[in-house]
Amino acid sequence: MKSDKKISTAVIQRLPRYYRYLGDLLDKDITRISSKELATRMGITASQIRQDLNNFGSFGQQGYGYNVALLYHEIRHILGLDKSYAMVLIGAGNFGQALVNYRGFAKRGYSFIALFDSSSDVIGKEIGGMSVMDTTLLPDFLSQNHVDIAVIALPGQAVGQFIDILAKSDVKGVWNFSGSDLTVPSNLTVENVRLADSLMTLSYKISKDEIIQRVTDA
Amino acid sequence: MKSDKKISTAVIQRLPRYYRYLGDLLDKDITRISSKELATRMGITASQIRQDLNNFGSFGQQGYGYNVALLYHEIRHILGLDKSYAMVLIGAGNFGQALVNYRGFAKRGYSFIALFDSSSDVIGKEIGGMSVMDTTLLPDFLSQNHVDIAVIALPGQAVGQFIDILAKSDVKGVWNFSGSDLTVPSNLTVENVRLADSLMTLSYKISKDEIIQRVTDA
Repeated sequence: MKSDKKISTAVIQRLPRYYRYLGDLLDKDITRISSKELATRMGITASQIRQDLNNFGSFGQQGYGYNVALLYHEIRHILGLDKSYAMVLIGAGNFGQALVNYRGFAKRGYSFIALFDSSSDVIGKEIGGMSVMDTTLLPDFLSQNHVDIAVIALPGQAVGQFIDILAKSDVKGVWNFSGSDLTVPSNLTVENVRLADSLMTLSYKISKDEIIQRVTDA
Repeated sequence: MKSDKKISTAVIQRLPRYYRYLGDLLDKDITRISSKELATRMGITASQIRQDLNNFGSFGQQGYGYNVALLYHEIRHILGLDKSYAMVLIGAGNFGQALVNYRGFAKRGYSFIALFDSSSDVIGKEIGGMSVMDTTLLPDFLSQNHVDIAVIALPGQAVGQFIDILAKSDVKGVWNFSGSDLTVPSNLTVENVRLADSLMTLSYKISKDEIIQRVTDA
């Protein structure tokens, strides 16, 4: 096991995809798969797959392929999905409400245990069986309850004050939908979600034929 | 110009980040920057930056660095952000409503021009100045209006019928929030957004100390 090797962000970001594809294979009772077959299904190269998975140990056997169940459970463990995570929502607007109502998270062990908002329009509202609390109650809540992840679904300018509160708590992760990349103290880990980046990637793809034309003309 | 070179998905996915960082530099009246400085700000290597940007032509000058404005405007063009895009929303639940109300998209030239839903609870509701229409009206709407991108904010099982409708229209891009990766006909381009993947990446990061411990013990 290459325990002291630093695993690149790109590899880590591909693991959830491996996890999903392997889960699909298990659903179809497929018990082993070659890196080549897996590569074809995932649209990446077999060599990429072998490189990626080598970071975590030796899962494949020459001429046999990967043991699907073993690899699935190992990636599940690596991703920390064999544990459950308690989450609080900060910002219970439309977007936050959609996150609470999305069942795919609970299925993977991520559960919202409390919802907070600063607006009197939303405080007290029932969402997913919980009543939205005033954000002034957040510090007390965090000191009295175990929370792993804070989900921030507020516009960027309102976020700073909550990062200060989270940094003083036992919360470990911040899932950030504020639209601005957050810088957090070292006791917090942030995952910035940039929906606009994904939309720009789509624009690029749909406008690329025209660009290739332009570049060829230049 | 390397017009016939296939640009990798990883490079394309980094372009929006370059675009944001360069925009920040312009806001601060910084007119040139070395690949090293840009690398430090972005947390990637200078060599990666040079490789990435070489895909699109020669923007840097030895000993001078990059002309920030030139590079910003070129990436803006490459990403297709100097054009505007008309979008329709399919699925006007909480999540879809949050997308319509997010101002960051319109600012970048992406505008919703119509909203559709199948549920009588939502049809007729006013969101962002538009009235939600019945999805049965979608084919007619698409034949009578220019639409670049369809944003799908519905659960996976309901999506197939809409892909068939979109494939018969002039829509070019599908921004997919259904939670399942979509396979689309070749006249459509899809960008699958997997929020659960991002949450799994966060779990991995917050649980990795423990894993490194486990691997070291093994």
